Amino acid sequence: MDNKYDVIVIGGGISGLTAAKLLVESGLNVIVLEARDRVGGRTHTIRKKEVQYVDVGGAYVGPTQNRILRVAKELGIKTYKVNISQRFIHHVKGRTTAFHGSFPPDWNPFVLLDYNHLWRTIDEWGKEIPEDAPWKAPHAAEWDKMTMKEFIEKTCWTKKAKKFAQLFVNVNVTSETQQVSLLWFLWYIKLCGGTSRIFSVTNGGQERKFVGGAGQISEKLMERLKGRVKLQSPVVRLDQSGDSVTVETLAHDLYQAKYVISAIPPGLTTKIHFNPELPPTRNQLIQRLPMGSVIKCMMYYKEAFWRKMDYCGAMYIDNDNAPVEITLDDTKPDGSFPAIMGFILSRKATALTHLSKEERKRRICEYYAKALGTKEALNPVHYEEKNWCEEQYSGGCYTAYFPPGIMTQYGSVIRQPVGRIYFAGTETATQWSGYMEGAVQAGERAAREVLCTMGHISKEEIWMPEPESEDVPALPFPTTFLERNLPSAQGFARFLCCSTFLASAAALGFLAYKKGFIIRV
Amino acid sequence: MDNKYDVIVIGGGISGLTAAKLLVESGLNVIVLEARDRVGGRTHTIRKKEVQYVDVGGAYVGPTQNRILRVAKELGIKTYKVNISQRFIHHVKGRTTAFHGSFPPDWNPFVLLDYNHLWRTIDEWGKEIPEDAPWKAPHAAEWDKMTMKEFIEKTCWTKKAKKFAQLFVNVNVTSETQQVSLLWFLWYIKLCGGTSRIFSVTNGGQERKFVGGAGQISEKLMERLKGRVKLQSPVVRLDQSGDSVTVETLAHDLYQAKYVISAIPPGLTTKIHFNPELPPTRNQLIQRLPMGSVIKCMMYYKEAFWRKMDYCGAMYIDNDNAPVEITLDDTKPDGSFPAIMGFILSRKATALTHLSKEERKRRICEYYAKALGTKEALNPVHYEEKNWCEEQYSGGCYTAYFPPGIMTQYGSVIRQPVGRIYFAGTETATQWSGYMEGAVQAGERAAREVLCTMGHISKEEIWMPEPESEDVPALPFPTTFLERNLPSAQGFARFLCCSTFLASAAALGFLAYKKGFIIRV
Repeated sequence: MDNKYDVIVIGGGISGLTAAKLLVESGLNVIVLEARDRVGGRTHTIRKKEVQYVDVGGAYVGPTQNRILRVAKELGIKTYKVNISQRFIHHVKGRTTAFHGSFPPDWNPFVLLDYNHLWRTIDEWGKEIPEDAPWKAPHAAEWDKMTMKEFIEKTCWTKKAKKFAQLFVNVNVTSETQQVSLLWFLWYIKLCGGTSRIFSVTNGGQERKFVGGAGQISEKLMERLKGRVKLQSPVVRLDQSGDSVTVETLAHDLYQAKYVISAIPPGLTTKIHFNPELPPTRNQLIQRLPMGSVIKCMMYYKEAFWRKMDYCGAMYIDNDNAPVEITLDDTKPDGSFPAIMGFILSRKATALTHLSKEERKRRICEYYAKALGTKEALNPVHYEEKNWCEEQYSGGCYTAYFPPGIMTQYGSVIRQPVGRIYFAGTETATQWSGYMEGAVQAGERAAREVLCTMGHISKEEIWMPEPESEDVPALPFPTTFLERNLPSAQGFARFLCCSTFLASAAALGFLAYKKGFIIRV
Repeated sequence: MDNKYDVIVIGGGISGLTAAKLLVESGLNVIVLEARDRVGGRTHTIRKKEVQYVDVGGAYVGPTQNRILRVAKELGIKTYKVNISQRFIHHVKGRTTAFHGSFPPDWNPFVLLDYNHLWRTIDEWGKEIPEDAPWKAPHAAEWDKMTMKEFIEKTCWTKKAKKFAQLFVNVNVTSETQQVSLLWFLWYIKLCGGTSRIFSVTNGGQERKFVGGAGQISEKLMERLKGRVKLQSPVVRLDQSGDSVTVETLAHDLYQAKYVISAIPPGLTTKIHFNPELPPTRNQLIQRLPMGSVIKCMMYYKEAFWRKMDYCGAMYIDNDNAPVEITLDDTKPDGSFPAIMGFILSRKATALTHLSKEERKRRICEYYAKALGTKEALNPVHYEEKNWCEEQYSGGCYTAYFPPGIMTQYGSVIRQPVGRIYFAGTETATQWSGYMEGAVQAGERAAREVLCTMGHISKEEIWMPEPESEDVPALPFPTTFLERNLPSAQGFARFLCCSTFLASAAALGFLAYKKGFIIRV
């Protein structure tokens, strides 16, 4: 067998390619096996004249995502800011409210207190969860037995906050509140720096996009790897019963190496037949981490008519009949190709998957017309969409989720090497897991695990901190005294009840005293 | 290509083999591809001198499981009754209580009312769930959003009933209450004929075993199929982009057929690379149905010492430190090879998987000694165990479970053919899903679906009722007037409170009247 390598990397997404890059730079002989006829995995930039270029997969990047920013910069890829110069829209109960900033306000003090209590609780509870071992959190057992649905019902008091919390889950993890573990969700949000960082455009996860598309990162990494990436090579067999690892692809090509880095989602490793079999806990873990459900939809218009109405194109749409729950302006930075990007999420992705592309387009436009209050939304010039649920070699998007009870029972093996196999992929990250940033962190960490095992670096060099990006600095999200100390909606209601009762009692007592009903003894 | 068939069956378990048998009997040219070097799937009989024979996988059979009884009878395999001549044991809080019958009694009327209310609720709610379409149940949306843990906490009032309900879930579906959907669990119990049928030995799912072992069923079916079963043939590729289906095995053997029956658990179909890709909803469903976790343990003793103590060997053990939660006498019908069969379930299977076989054996014996109250349990003559969590080609045992939110969002595609692929396997059954009975029902139904598509039978002949077994007749489980009408523990407590309050008020009133505190107006 000629195909002998130091390391075989399975998966040509950002995680696998950054792992391979680091190993090649360290002088190792590396091959990357990619199932598809393209690199990029869950990132994919399509070029065509109607759109110039479009990210139909992962696209957004922001402050604190320093690794992916460093990699992009090295490759000469620039970022631009997503447009939020005008107002956001919160469309709920058929009514549109416009506002500035990433979180919707409300006239009702109970709703405001409820929102505040919700974000505060998610962020506070997250503080006790170790990034690299959420199963060790003091409340891990209790929280992992609960779904996000239970948490929301216990934490929120108003229907509006409950519904927005559901949207927050749908949008951030492309799954339903009843499907995901509270422990896992708290961990996921914490890894992104909290509720404000993950959900914000300015200073948050959606602040920027890459000029020319996120797909360029993988394409340029592949170029740098000079022929070391084999496309159309799905791995079907992995044999480490001997002194080295043998990997076979669907086309019967054989590769041999000292080590393997698996840089695909944990659930996709079920596609590989292992010899010897995986250890029991890993064999069961990989059946328990499904990928989320999303259809990404880009609607192109002749002009960015929403900006004329002082709307920036960002909308939260809370309605059972709306196909899309969240949108952002997707116009190019120079103002060309005006477009609105929208996500069809989770239950809606499943419900609308059977429709024709034309029908989905029609329904989305109708809802945009409602939310923006103008018929201009009904006349797009072009439509692009990508249903990630149909992708055999992604399984879904954006990322894997943990159903209740899985993190504490199986989670601890997620990064545990199996013989000569090491695990990368954004699901194994401890910062921004599920994002391009997590992909880089995990890929480079797995590469350094291999380097350490081979004696090239020390154990202390495996987990490396990343200096802050100079181009995209992060500002803190300070909480105000009020945000920290305001009561919950329920607490406030209780307080109101008590004070009303006490005040009434006092008033009645005073009256009774004055009228002589109460006699001094 | 010479390997041309009418039908390729993937999977040589009971479902695949009964499908193949029916197709061959209908005159079709069939091949069965089995991944392992043996048939039987999740049933497996091991023979060795220390045990004669032992079922390390699926073993129990009982009334209303008429299809598997019919198949076994045709193959000349007899059943025998599991020993329950002596008393059952319920070991809880370190104390052993002995009783007759399948459900533990209690001295505390609140606990009894709580048990009654629990079983009654599960059975009553199950009545509204369509066997073939649980996602269409009137309360489907609500129940699928709840875990069994939530249901138990809302339904049970006493700690004892809550703990026993947890054991009931662990034992029946080898998973945790927080991991499974209420809707799915209600459906699963209903398909077995209710709480009494599924859990009972006498007249229930554990009434009998097969003389010589359940593995014989598949072995004899393979004999009948005369060379049509290919062992060591894991399927890695399925291509139906042309006019027929091409299937490739790990050893590069190619098979071509008009139709395929997939007779493996839904989750295991992720091991196949499909061309064209599966439809989006199925692509996502198969990531969402993990297999349960169980280690089956048989402890052999010189004699059945428990019977001398008037214990039958059946124990429910409710203690966090106990490895095994449920046991049954596993002595051969002629009294030879005295043994106790015990299940290490779900969280315990994961927790104890890393121990050595010797250590598990020691811990089990120690607990048997505690529960049976005799040191005789510490001296076994032999130990057999099978950890199903480590099996790549089962994924786990007994069966797949539905986490919350999956049945309603993805469940409806479970039996939907994909092009030329039809789906068998016990997970697709509508009676005793998860059991050998379900495997036969699903296998024969899928075979008839193919026969119907080929024009050999009509659509009405696909789903066939099964006449009752003459040898193993079913008795009803009548509910008494009391069982149907007794209040819940909570209701009874409320009633007691109210009556105490009213009685006290009446007594006080009468006293006051007598003493002249109340003046007639």
